[in-house]
Amino acid sequence: MKIALAQLNYHVGNFESNTAKIIDTIKQARAKGAELVVFAELSVCGYPSRDFLEFQEYIELCEAAAQQIAAECTDIACIIGIPTENKNPEGKDLNNSAYFIANGKVTAVVNKALLPNYDVFDEYRYFEPSTTFKCIDYKGIRIALTICEDLWNTIENPLYITRPMDELIKEKPDVMINIAASPFAYDHDEERIAILSDNARRYALPLFYVNHVGAQTELIFDGGSLVFDNEGNIADELPYFNEAITYYDLQPDASIKLNQPSTVRANRQTDIEQIYEGLILGIRDYFHKSGFKSATLGLSGGIDSAVVCALAADALGAENVMAVLLPSKFSTDHSLKDAEDLVTNLGCKSETIAIRSVTDALEAVLQPQFEGLPFNIAEENIQSRSRAVLLMAMCNKFGYILLNTSNKSEAAVGYGTLYGDMCGGISVLGDVYKTQVYQLANYINRDKAIIPINSIVKPPSAELRPDQKDSDSLPEYDILDAILKEYIENKTSSKGIIKLGYDEQVVRRVIRLVNIAEHKRYQTPPILRVSPKAFGMGRRMPIVGKYLS
Amino acid sequence: MKIALAQLNYHVGNFESNTAKIIDTIKQARAKGAELVVFAELSVCGYPSRDFLEFQEYIELCEAAAQQIAAECTDIACIIGIPTENKNPEGKDLNNSAYFIANGKVTAVVNKALLPNYDVFDEYRYFEPSTTFKCIDYKGIRIALTICEDLWNTIENPLYITRPMDELIKEKPDVMINIAASPFAYDHDEERIAILSDNARRYALPLFYVNHVGAQTELIFDGGSLVFDNEGNIADELPYFNEAITYYDLQPDASIKLNQPSTVRANRQTDIEQIYEGLILGIRDYFHKSGFKSATLGLSGGIDSAVVCALAADALGAENVMAVLLPSKFSTDHSLKDAEDLVTNLGCKSETIAIRSVTDALEAVLQPQFEGLPFNIAEENIQSRSRAVLLMAMCNKFGYILLNTSNKSEAAVGYGTLYGDMCGGISVLGDVYKTQVYQLANYINRDKAIIPINSIVKPPSAELRPDQKDSDSLPEYDILDAILKEYIENKTSSKGIIKLGYDEQVVRRVIRLVNIAEHKRYQTPPILRVSPKAFGMGRRMPIVGKYLS
Repeated sequence: MKIALAQLNYHVGNFESNTAKIIDTIKQARAKGAELVVFAELSVCGYPSRDFLEFQEYIELCEAAAQQIAAECTDIACIIGIPTENKNPEGKDLNNSAYFIANGKVTAVVNKALLPNYDVFDEYRYFEPSTTFKCIDYKGIRIALTICEDLWNTIENPLYITRPMDELIKEKPDVMINIAASPFAYDHDEERIAILSDNARRYALPLFYVNHVGAQTELIFDGGSLVFDNEGNIADELPYFNEAITYYDLQPDASIKLNQPSTVRANRQTDIEQIYEGLILGIRDYFHKSGFKSATLGLSGGIDSAVVCALAADALGAENVMAVLLPSKFSTDHSLKDAEDLVTNLGCKSETIAIRSVTDALEAVLQPQFEGLPFNIAEENIQSRSRAVLLMAMCNKFGYILLNTSNKSEAAVGYGTLYGDMCGGISVLGDVYKTQVYQLANYINRDKAIIPINSIVKPPSAELRPDQKDSDSLPEYDILDAILKEYIENKTSSKGIIKLGYDEQVVRRVIRLVNIAEHKRYQTPPILRVSPKAFGMGRRMPIVGKYLS
Repeated sequence: MKIALAQLNYHVGNFESNTAKIIDTIKQARAKGAELVVFAELSVCGYPSRDFLEFQEYIELCEAAAQQIAAECTDIACIIGIPTENKNPEGKDLNNSAYFIANGKVTAVVNKALLPNYDVFDEYRYFEPSTTFKCIDYKGIRIALTICEDLWNTIENPLYITRPMDELIKEKPDVMINIAASPFAYDHDEERIAILSDNARRYALPLFYVNHVGAQTELIFDGGSLVFDNEGNIADELPYFNEAITYYDLQPDASIKLNQPSTVRANRQTDIEQIYEGLILGIRDYFHKSGFKSATLGLSGGIDSAVVCALAADALGAENVMAVLLPSKFSTDHSLKDAEDLVTNLGCKSETIAIRSVTDALEAVLQPQFEGLPFNIAEENIQSRSRAVLLMAMCNKFGYILLNTSNKSEAAVGYGTLYGDMCGGISVLGDVYKTQVYQLANYINRDKAIIPINSIVKPPSAELRPDQKDSDSLPEYDILDAILKEYIENKTSSKGIIKLGYDEQVVRRVIRLVNIAEHKRYQTPPILRVSPKAFGMGRRMPIVGKYLS
């Protein structure tokens, strides 16, 4: 049987474009002689649809899309992902389903049994898990069709009490097909390969796996769909961060013949290469899917805004990036020079707006209240917030989206000004630790010096008071980031982190800073997720809670 | 058997204060001759603990608290709620449990079977549901102990496929006890009474029900614990929005004798009375549990900020409220006068800071960029954002928390400035429609005119340009709020709302406004939840999603 895998970039709730893309792919596949085209999990509506799923009309629009797709499939079969009404009166209203479509109609429905409900996933919010399992017969081939998590109940860490393939295997299927919506994290590709390979080997079946590609606000899908032989070896690996349609012949002996050159990667990409590509896709899809073209950002001469500016220029085109230099009385000449050099290197647009007269006016009207009180964080934040007001005015006047330039280390310890440098439509580096920002800068400079070396080598500073340096109030970033990773990604308590050999005072101070900044992070822009644990929808902490604060 | 019900205000993660409060209550109850004290669901750690639950140390601290409590219970029994490790290697790491403690140790453990995972609830994120059911025998009484949602699988709308009491009833218990964490919404008290009464009647058992009281960031718990006889009649109803400890004798004939005067309400409180009390508790607990004392807010002379100021004065004391009047060139004299009158009526502190020199300075530095372009939303937002910078400077200098004054109607249609009037530590009215704000104002004025009548009767205006009125760009609020409620609370699509008789153009415009404001609401402060569907953790919408936009 000739099988096509369609790794596509959907848009949540955009039935018109998703359906057109699916039907267009079916037509292409038919022209290539494919007998079955496999689309990803919840492909008709995109993933995650979130509370759109609670609208009856949304489910009806999904079903209408499926009927349009079915009408196209008179002489070819396809598998699509779709939310469907739970026919059982008890339990949640919906199932997370796969339709097997052939002869112009839906011939089989498979419901997902294992519903991820951790980190960024909320599937129990909407779906009732399946408790029945049945293979699908098509043209003499018996298919064990499962949906994403259904293959992820590992032996080592059994998150669920059932394992769908243990049931399906009893019907002696010839092949496994898994449709997925498995979001990107820099360490996720290897885990995905290991788990899927383990399934192919354990059940001694070839496995076709189709993932989403593209970004939906904070969630980036990296593609990397996979084909395994029945010994668990990778037969093919689809591109990362790009759409692809590929073709395979499933031979009677269960071996797989590729209809195009294999794109299995000889070497894994480094974390930083993956993060770079993920962020480019994340920025691009955020703008394109919300109907915007142009970005603005505040360019300070420091490394964070330089990296965001370079990423934006790559994602949107330099001509669509407006860098705004906003020097204050505390900005150093070299910072302004570094920012100007970057603008020249990238060829993006720029404006320079000195903020001194604004901060002077703000301090003047506050003089009656602030009389006799020393300069402190109030005046520091006035600078940061004045810049935000100016950047947002540029957005409101010219239709830009403001890019947030805070990194994950800063966001973690609250080293940023709410309604100041924490503003933006989307946070580009909010899931990238400062030490990784340096690596990204070096990666951006791999062929030529785009980011001025000075921005990379000088000691980081917010420049909100004279001679300020980040290291005045924070530990060095390699120590800070290591502690943060233990706390945030590994959920190690301060006691546990101290046991790992870090200085007790430093650890307690850092963890305290993370906890008291929870109220700030609640109001940050959505953060492009590139790690296994990003701030945002995947990390839900109390604000007035006291533990560890 | 003499049973004490303890309806207490816990603080998430504050083991020291929660444990002290529980032990103190046990001592009081012992002095009154109680044999069993019942505390609420997850009482040792507070509710919701959210991702604190993912820290191993957090679970250990819960267990340590339970052991401290057990040590106190040598001659009295108690029921506490606690997260515990799931002993089964398969499934989620934790159970949502109740400990029955007697003779100084835990003598029985009950795990919750029905885990709410809708609206504001995420229990499947952490807990494995129980599939086994067993009554507890104590002093000759057989107790069917369940946890909150376990009694909420209604016949009419069966959200789950099991019903724990259908199993427990087989063991012929003498009484039901249900420990809960059931958050407030203005229509929730009647539903709660109906469902619990239905359980008592259906199983023909007396029922003791203990809820939380107090607020945890956005979630407010209203208490209202209940006792029913075995015919489903209310035997007692604990106070709303206040802590209470009450005592009952469960007689051998299953009848219940109260040890204090009954506080069953003759009449239900109106929605507005409940919202008023809920908001007072929400503000007070937000400040006290985060260790702050004083609030500030921008007072415009309009009704929203007037209502927030009055609520804050009641919740925190007028001496802890700093009202800041921030007139611009578009502010009318009567607005300033109305604001000043309110300050006088409340006796709170106030400052007046004219913003004209600040907006002039901002517009001056933007002149090169904005040259020749007409006044538009950019200049409007500059005013709103200048006010936010000044209010946040007051917070940073004096340690206030800024109260957000946006109402739910505005928040819904995006009629607010991000980083401007959408700022604040907590949103007081973000779940209160404009029409309800008027009702709250009248309720506040029930005995004397605290809020100037002019603030109530004048046409609402943001005063960001000359002669601006809300009704220039929005439908009248009674129409707007009715449409919003259909869309947000009832999840009716625009097509469905039009069918109800609303003007098609108006409906399409309103729904479009709601959808395109999703990116703004993502960055709003936490909103005190008073309705069955508030913006925030209970409503999770895509930002770049296209459906209905």
